[in-house]
Amino acid sequence: VTNPTVADLGEHALIERITSRLPVPAWVVVGPGDDAAVLKPVRNALDVVTTDALVDGVHFDMRFVPSRAIGHRALAANLSDLAAMGARPRAALLSLALPASLAANVVDGLVDGFVAHAASQQVAIVGGNITRTPGPLVVNVTAHGSVHPRGVLTREGARPGDGVYVTGWLGAAAVGLASLRARAEHPGHEACPVPACEERYLYPVSRSRAGLQISHYGAASSCMDLSDGLADGVRQLAAASGVGVLVDGDALPIPDEARRWHEVQGTDAMAAALSGGDDYELLFTVRPRHAGKLRGAAARCRDLPITRIGVVTKDTAQLVRRGSTVSALPEGYQHFR
Amino acid sequence: VTNPTVADLGEHALIERITSRLPVPAWVVVGPGDDAAVLKPVRNALDVVTTDALVDGVHFDMRFVPSRAIGHRALAANLSDLAAMGARPRAALLSLALPASLAANVVDGLVDGFVAHAASQQVAIVGGNITRTPGPLVVNVTAHGSVHPRGVLTREGARPGDGVYVTGWLGAAAVGLASLRARAEHPGHEACPVPACEERYLYPVSRSRAGLQISHYGAASSCMDLSDGLADGVRQLAAASGVGVLVDGDALPIPDEARRWHEVQGTDAMAAALSGGDDYELLFTVRPRHAGKLRGAAARCRDLPITRIGVVTKDTAQLVRRGSTVSALPEGYQHFR
Repeated sequence: VTNPTVADLGEHALIERITSRLPVPAWVVVGPGDDAAVLKPVRNALDVVTTDALVDGVHFDMRFVPSRAIGHRALAANLSDLAAMGARPRAALLSLALPASLAANVVDGLVDGFVAHAASQQVAIVGGNITRTPGPLVVNVTAHGSVHPRGVLTREGARPGDGVYVTGWLGAAAVGLASLRARAEHPGHEACPVPACEERYLYPVSRSRAGLQISHYGAASSCMDLSDGLADGVRQLAAASGVGVLVDGDALPIPDEARRWHEVQGTDAMAAALSGGDDYELLFTVRPRHAGKLRGAAARCRDLPITRIGVVTKDTAQLVRRGSTVSALPEGYQHFR
Repeated sequence: VTNPTVADLGEHALIERITSRLPVPAWVVVGPGDDAAVLKPVRNALDVVTTDALVDGVHFDMRFVPSRAIGHRALAANLSDLAAMGARPRAALLSLALPASLAANVVDGLVDGFVAHAASQQVAIVGGNITRTPGPLVVNVTAHGSVHPRGVLTREGARPGDGVYVTGWLGAAAVGLASLRARAEHPGHEACPVPACEERYLYPVSRSRAGLQISHYGAASSCMDLSDGLADGVRQLAAASGVGVLVDGDALPIPDEARRWHEVQGTDAMAAALSGGDDYELLFTVRPRHAGKLRGAAARCRDLPITRIGVVTKDTAQLVRRGSTVSALPEGYQHFR
């Protein structure tokens, strides 16, 4: 068979193709291939665990998302959740539901992307599962990390007066997605290339280092990651903390490439940055008296910008200011709506 | 809306419906609802992690599997993997890919079954994920346990001369599935009821206690759980250990109810027990000199039978004996074939 499908290979051969490529560090007592993985814990640390799934046709479109990017993004989304807790990522499990007709080289690409990103983030792939499905490809990842007992970041500690901050850039991934989609649907499309935004959509790098430094310096009163857009994140963090947030729309760190793209399209870069998903940045709050701790953490985040984008309020309304106009923050994205 | 779908409720309401029903023990520092869960580790133990998925139309049929059973089975399959490592189950994550048209009460039933089984096994549900899918319902579970560093059971230690054992009963779940399917497809069907086999298929209880005792007594040289049938299990364990196995087909612990059902159907109970899946029993090997350790472990497994079903051989062929006839063990089940 020249281009075998997963059905041609069968389950055992597929698992063998995957596990043969995985390095197993010494703290993995039992790695992939047994009923479960056995891991040595980190001394004096708490375990952090999270799970997240990507579904073909919902979270990615195989017409313009390379298989490597699918694997990369599935892991990055989980590592972003660990970063939001202040945790150091450590291990991951990869569970695939595969259509029988899927080309085996798509699985290879997906696994390559997953393995490469895991290696770059010093994450061991310790196990997983493969099953067939009559439906679309589903990539379910579970990630494990460790956090210092006094460094746990949660969504619950924001208080009125705290500053609201984000790492990195907002709105880039959404522009990348829109551009990739436009190019896939209109092959002649050449207007305003956005390579950095496309890269950011396809190969996001979670803010593990920033999360660790914010945790280490005790800089944040609350923290979460942005997967479904800033508006959704602000609403969730505010709800968990029982507070309001006033976002300064003019302060959002939207990259120039994304701004230019919106200008050409005639769309609103700020509105898009509020509602666009897939940024995988950290959203966090800082007590005014902890500004020095934040500076300490920020100094150790290399070139990553950290931007103040608003303030926590006692009134529980979620608002956004543009120039001198204050309006309600848009509703967050709801996956079933 | 009288019978709301998951799309009617939306993601946040669905998550709220689930998390509001979860008790959170003290060792769970951060439970469901944040970016990730934070757990206090067990002192002087190793972490054990596994993941497994059930897909509608592949692993269950919603025509005759109640939603409660779907949730129960998804957890039990994972706890069975932990049991096979000698681990005590501790925590689970539930990741659901839901069709938008699915009735919300199906999700409620699924979660009820998951929560009830978790409570009965002292497992805390510490997190999860919900997404929509254009395809069938996918239930992905990750389970966490702990194991004593000297009690880890793997598939690799079987040596020629070791006895081969199974816990409990073989072939019951396959008969239960066949009976449930026959009753669903032929509603008048009343021949030979098999309530215990159906219960075993719908609500399997993994052999956590047996796994713990076998681990504690150091009784086993290798161990795995049986999810895809005895023949598949024997082949996998033998391959991992680099040995052969001669199975005594006449010794298989097939329950009377299943034997009677096969008699009525005119089918071969032993062949069915070799190839039938979903038993979730433990398959393990014991050195001859460790017979006393096995007796010690078995005595603490209450009413659970433990049956010797064969012997490990130096020749790497996998064989089964029936009366005086020895033949090749059937091929194991392959999920994509």
